[in-house]
Amino acid sequence: MERYDIAILGTGPAGVSAAITATIRNKKIILIGSADLSLKMVKAHEIQNYPGLPHIKGEDMAAAFKGHLDSMGIEITEDRISSVYAMGDYFVLQGGEMMYEATTVILASGVNTSRSLPGEDDFLGRGVSYCATCDAPLYRGKKTAVVGYNEKEEAEARFLSEVCEEVLYFPMYTVDDAADISERFGARTRLIREKVIGIESGSSMQSKVLRTDAGNTYEVSGVFVLRESVAPDKLIPGIEVRDNHVAVDRQMATSLPGCFAAGDVTGTPYQYIKSAGEGNVAALSAVKYLDELKRINA
Amino acid sequence: MERYDIAILGTGPAGVSAAITATIRNKKIILIGSADLSLKMVKAHEIQNYPGLPHIKGEDMAAAFKGHLDSMGIEITEDRISSVYAMGDYFVLQGGEMMYEATTVILASGVNTSRSLPGEDDFLGRGVSYCATCDAPLYRGKKTAVVGYNEKEEAEARFLSEVCEEVLYFPMYTVDDAADISERFGARTRLIREKVIGIESGSSMQSKVLRTDAGNTYEVSGVFVLRESVAPDKLIPGIEVRDNHVAVDRQMATSLPGCFAAGDVTGTPYQYIKSAGEGNVAALSAVKYLDELKRINA
Repeated sequence: MERYDIAILGTGPAGVSAAITATIRNKKIILIGSADLSLKMVKAHEIQNYPGLPHIKGEDMAAAFKGHLDSMGIEITEDRISSVYAMGDYFVLQGGEMMYEATTVILASGVNTSRSLPGEDDFLGRGVSYCATCDAPLYRGKKTAVVGYNEKEEAEARFLSEVCEEVLYFPMYTVDDAADISERFGARTRLIREKVIGIESGSSMQSKVLRTDAGNTYEVSGVFVLRESVAPDKLIPGIEVRDNHVAVDRQMATSLPGCFAAGDVTGTPYQYIKSAGEGNVAALSAVKYLDELKRINA
Repeated sequence: MERYDIAILGTGPAGVSAAITATIRNKKIILIGSADLSLKMVKAHEIQNYPGLPHIKGEDMAAAFKGHLDSMGIEITEDRISSVYAMGDYFVLQGGEMMYEATTVILASGVNTSRSLPGEDDFLGRGVSYCATCDAPLYRGKKTAVVGYNEKEEAEARFLSEVCEEVLYFPMYTVDDAADISERFGARTRLIREKVIGIESGSSMQSKVLRTDAGNTYEVSGVFVLRESVAPDKLIPGIEVRDNHVAVDRQMATSLPGCFAAGDVTGTPYQYIKSAGEGNVAALSAVKYLDELKRINA
């Protein structure tokens, strides 16, 4: 079987960045993911903080990334990797029908947002967002909802509360009887202790209606669905995981020699530019690892 | 004195990225640096691995970054900070004539490339480069020189040796009598145990002549000057330094509470996209720190 120097899993900003830098460094790579790069990116309203591409729509960013890959002759292998096995001095990747071998792996598979709410996927990018920092400016002076899956998301609600007219916060976890609601969730946030069970169209083009387990409905201009990822140790048995993310050092090395990771899979913040930066570092670390290996075996 | 939420030192990719994200998060910032952003960037031949801006000239990247700042109304304060003092719950920054106060600091001042070789600054971007990954493609099949200030740079020579016709390696440190010259420095690298004392114009437009302490001269198509930075603990007394760089964790926090760092100052690889990604993370960490502080003091 053909053995690649570097197998890159994922075609979001981290995977694309890793592929570009690894190619410049003359490594034989395989970039595995989706031809349209990343559904999350394509559906993003607008990304304001990727330096050099101001206020760019997600689909335009995806096109710019695709153009960059094309200009360097980098192809995308459309496949879904279900398992990665460390074989000692190389890795085996199990795809849908194919298997692949590579000396090193860069895991850039993003956060798994499975278990979507009914309506969530349909309205992603059209009233439903996964990123308060990215999309809050669209809802300045408007009413929004946060569906928060853990306490960390309360900071996002506080930020939205500075920008929006009103924020409805639906905790998908148990909130203690907190006296400091305003401090904790934001001055313009209303805490609603009901579980969201679906997102539906509202009375206007963009507005959305949330349906809860209490039988109530709430209409807002935008919905932020904020949750953690599924543990990535299901993908690579034995890899060290910390807070549901792959544990990495500053050089993006994981606990498995030869396996590097980059982007959302390594932890928050979930930001395009952070992911792209980490992809670059992971690629250069993989190159260094390959060079060392070559010297040892020479 | 006016107190800023975040003082950002440096206007390279890390500082620009931090300023953009901190502004989106509604923080009161001051961005201190140079109106032309970064001399190193402006003089870069071409940057190939900043995803979304393929094969962009340094000056065009600087223009894109400047346009991004302008679009958000972010101004640059032209000053040079000579010292930063941690005062407990805020910082004082000593500029050329002004002093500034800020609750948090993001150090994005880059690597200090002082003690330049004669000619080095003049020819930067015109035959002299600081980055093999960035500029090696320009010298495919040509003869280049590496002026390496430490052993780490030998990996760069090995990479160049894959691309160039010949690489002359001038170690600015002591090299043991290594038997494995070819393995260690690259198959097409010639080790020249002489110290470079200056860089001069060559016989053609781009070519350069290196003059050494042995009284010899060597003509090449391009020169890579590769060295570490000066210790940043001279700028911020008491900050923890590791290998001549500011020590940071994955959230870009330094050893001083409220002080974050991003970009080249935090260590290798020296890459634009890595710096931009870290600037984003540093900004979001500073925002989080400010929010915590506000809650504690409320």
